[in-house]
Amino acid sequence: MEEEKEKAGLEIQEAPEQQAAPDDEHQVGLSDAFISEILELLDHQYTDRIQELCRDLSAPDSAELLIKVSPSARHQLVEILETVIQPETFSYLDHEMLNDLLEHMSGAHVAAIVNELESDDALRLIDDLDEERRHEIMRHLSRKVRAGVEEGLTFPEDSAGRMMQREFVAIPQFWTVGKIVDYLRAASDALPDKFYDIFIVDPMHRFVGAVTLSSVLCAQRAVKVDTLVSDEHVTVPVDMDREQVAFQFRRKDLLSAPVVDSDNRLIGVITVDDIVDVIDEVAEEDFLKFGGVSGSDITRTLFSTAKSRSTWLIVNLFTAFIAASVIGVFEKSIEKVVALAILMPIVASMGGNAGTQALTVMIRALATKEVSAANAWRVIGKECMVGLLNGGLFALLLGGLVAWWFGSLVLGGVISAALILNLFVAGLFGAIIPVTLSRLGLDPAPAAGVLLTTVTDVVGFMAFLGLATIFLL
Amino acid sequence: MEEEKEKAGLEIQEAPEQQAAPDDEHQVGLSDAFISEILELLDHQYTDRIQELCRDLSAPDSAELLIKVSPSARHQLVEILETVIQPETFSYLDHEMLNDLLEHMSGAHVAAIVNELESDDALRLIDDLDEERRHEIMRHLSRKVRAGVEEGLTFPEDSAGRMMQREFVAIPQFWTVGKIVDYLRAASDALPDKFYDIFIVDPMHRFVGAVTLSSVLCAQRAVKVDTLVSDEHVTVPVDMDREQVAFQFRRKDLLSAPVVDSDNRLIGVITVDDIVDVIDEVAEEDFLKFGGVSGSDITRTLFSTAKSRSTWLIVNLFTAFIAASVIGVFEKSIEKVVALAILMPIVASMGGNAGTQALTVMIRALATKEVSAANAWRVIGKECMVGLLNGGLFALLLGGLVAWWFGSLVLGGVISAALILNLFVAGLFGAIIPVTLSRLGLDPAPAAGVLLTTVTDVVGFMAFLGLATIFLL
Repeated sequence: MEEEKEKAGLEIQEAPEQQAAPDDEHQVGLSDAFISEILELLDHQYTDRIQELCRDLSAPDSAELLIKVSPSARHQLVEILETVIQPETFSYLDHEMLNDLLEHMSGAHVAAIVNELESDDALRLIDDLDEERRHEIMRHLSRKVRAGVEEGLTFPEDSAGRMMQREFVAIPQFWTVGKIVDYLRAASDALPDKFYDIFIVDPMHRFVGAVTLSSVLCAQRAVKVDTLVSDEHVTVPVDMDREQVAFQFRRKDLLSAPVVDSDNRLIGVITVDDIVDVIDEVAEEDFLKFGGVSGSDITRTLFSTAKSRSTWLIVNLFTAFIAASVIGVFEKSIEKVVALAILMPIVASMGGNAGTQALTVMIRALATKEVSAANAWRVIGKECMVGLLNGGLFALLLGGLVAWWFGSLVLGGVISAALILNLFVAGLFGAIIPVTLSRLGLDPAPAAGVLLTTVTDVVGFMAFLGLATIFLL
Repeated sequence: MEEEKEKAGLEIQEAPEQQAAPDDEHQVGLSDAFISEILELLDHQYTDRIQELCRDLSAPDSAELLIKVSPSARHQLVEILETVIQPETFSYLDHEMLNDLLEHMSGAHVAAIVNELESDDALRLIDDLDEERRHEIMRHLSRKVRAGVEEGLTFPEDSAGRMMQREFVAIPQFWTVGKIVDYLRAASDALPDKFYDIFIVDPMHRFVGAVTLSSVLCAQRAVKVDTLVSDEHVTVPVDMDREQVAFQFRRKDLLSAPVVDSDNRLIGVITVDDIVDVIDEVAEEDFLKFGGVSGSDITRTLFSTAKSRSTWLIVNLFTAFIAASVIGVFEKSIEKVVALAILMPIVASMGGNAGTQALTVMIRALATKEVSAANAWRVIGKECMVGLLNGGLFALLLGGLVAWWFGSLVLGGVISAALILNLFVAGLFGAIIPVTLSRLGLDPAPAAGVLLTTVTDVVGFMAFLGLATIFLL
């Protein structure tokens, strides 16, 4: 052991500038050098040295370390760092990784972590577990934590109830600023670590209003608290969807929002840091779904990644066959004019790209509520016009190039007409598909792309080959 | 006028449930019915009634109204609502729309708006203007606002200096909690409307530490403020990029962060609501760029939209020609076996989709820093393996289908081999293109997709047509 430590110490001395203290003044996150060093120490099983280096890591830093190493290294690290790692670390990991890690830990160890977490993080962690595992761990929880988790699980997934923290500061309506300050000073041990607003409740614990900490701090002791109530505050019903909650926070620039039950009783608080996570997650989901993946695969195993990707590829194979069979209809034309086979992917590809542009703008605008029933038709009409405009422009360009390349004005004319039609269809469907899906209550991001390219492929091939058959043969 | 009002009033009475008070308890944002009503009133030029209905709109609600109507209605509304609309409304509009609106307003009117805004919003608004217009408006600004804006404009775009607010609460290091509270109560008029942390500075105004309001509120009067300093606080250098700032906020769950100059002197504060906007904007930009558009076009004019989209389509036309010329090389083969023309888009399209999946995951992981030099090679290797695995799986499926469809085992074998190769290449390039672009300091989102599909088209066509030429002819 002694020798091991010494050796590890030596290695570090050799490259002191690489040691990269993770809390470097403006350095955000871990340096790659730090991670490589840990991995090297892990190779040599210098566990003491790893514990020493990781002892002062913040929860997000530890999480980053676990995320960036291979699955096997991750398991070893969690074991080595069991006593060192902060419980909050686990609330920064995603579902799949968490499940994988927790599976290899004892129920008592997991419970010890959960007992340490704040109520919202505890709920999220338990929620991510498989049914069986959940029961095992629930038995090890403290009574208070268990009760909170059990109630939390009764709220719908992705609702305010699942995000909220049960620790908040609530005071009666008739208090003065002086009384509040005295109370906070006396009760400081029983209060949450951090709180951003003070909530006012009536004797039935129903929500009356909220005051910001800055307004309390700046007011004279004799001021009645209800004169400080900010009118910007809204209550969040416990079953409100988290995206809706995030939308409220952004619109009103809130720091925290009271969560109430159906009787308007105050039961929890949602804070802005959770909202930042929601916005991030929702944006990430949209982005990934749009690219045809179901979640970030970085930490998944090889087989699980390949499997999750294959669903999408099956759909794509099917739609590619539809496009292929459209081409098949014009087999005879292609046999006669092989230039058609050379040029047809251009028409399809231009349509796919122009349509994807319209689609992207619409999906995003629906998510941010820039587009709703009030302006949907105007925007769809505009996309059609954009398609026609660019269709006309590129028809001239492409038609000219093709006429020159193949020495055939008719072929140039045919591809021009096909392109205008396909870019118009691309604009129309690129705008109308997301709006329709969203009207049907479906999420447009994952399905819209494949629907659109099927349309632009089919229309592209059919228009080009069909017109060619009519005018060239 | 009287008559007009009455008529408008009648219309509303007819459909009272549609009147949709915008501040309905849990209603977030404006209802579509409200917007339609305003537009109808606008058609009849019932300006008084419009002013009346919009008088109590919050800034985000007014902004939503302006965003959702056509450009001409927007201009009319801004004119009608000139005296009614909150100045903050304009800070919720995007660059293009803002410029378009401000162009039609008098310099004095714009200056009146800017004078009312907080320093960060004022700067953003001025920054968005054209050079000439900016000078005109600067002349109308109050001396204090102008000085702030002028200094703000010296900081690099998208830096902390551009986002920060100059209004903050700073106190000397030796103060007690009692002294702070007395100061805040006495100076409350001179303080910012809202503040989330109190900053401690030395006599040279250099940043020493920050205390949260909750810790000040809960501490006894005699407590020295420097014992309350939270170690989670980090300073933000004035030239730090806004994405980097946002990353810090998320990692540390900050409410506000002190902005310091190169001498560590406190010059401003960035608050979490600005960070929420940054996260949102960056996610939006990435999403839009990935779809081949440069910004949300919803509010742009028809021609400006068509023009901005055409750049991308030109690139796509060029790459489509590259793919077409690859097909052209195998003209003779297609003439002999027309089935090749029917099947070749399937190989290209499967490659494009599989590659986009890898690409999407990588772009996102690079943005969230889940992938860095420490694990890039491992992730690239994994993507290649995923490509091979799914390549093998779909090769069996596609090969079987093709052999059955065209009654040719050799053709089935050829398309299988081409698919495996193309899916491997898709995984490799899907992962390696974003990593390379990001190493080169380029943003991977806009260019990666077009580079990738060029590769998968070329490799797909070449492998399939090449192998077919060797084995079938």
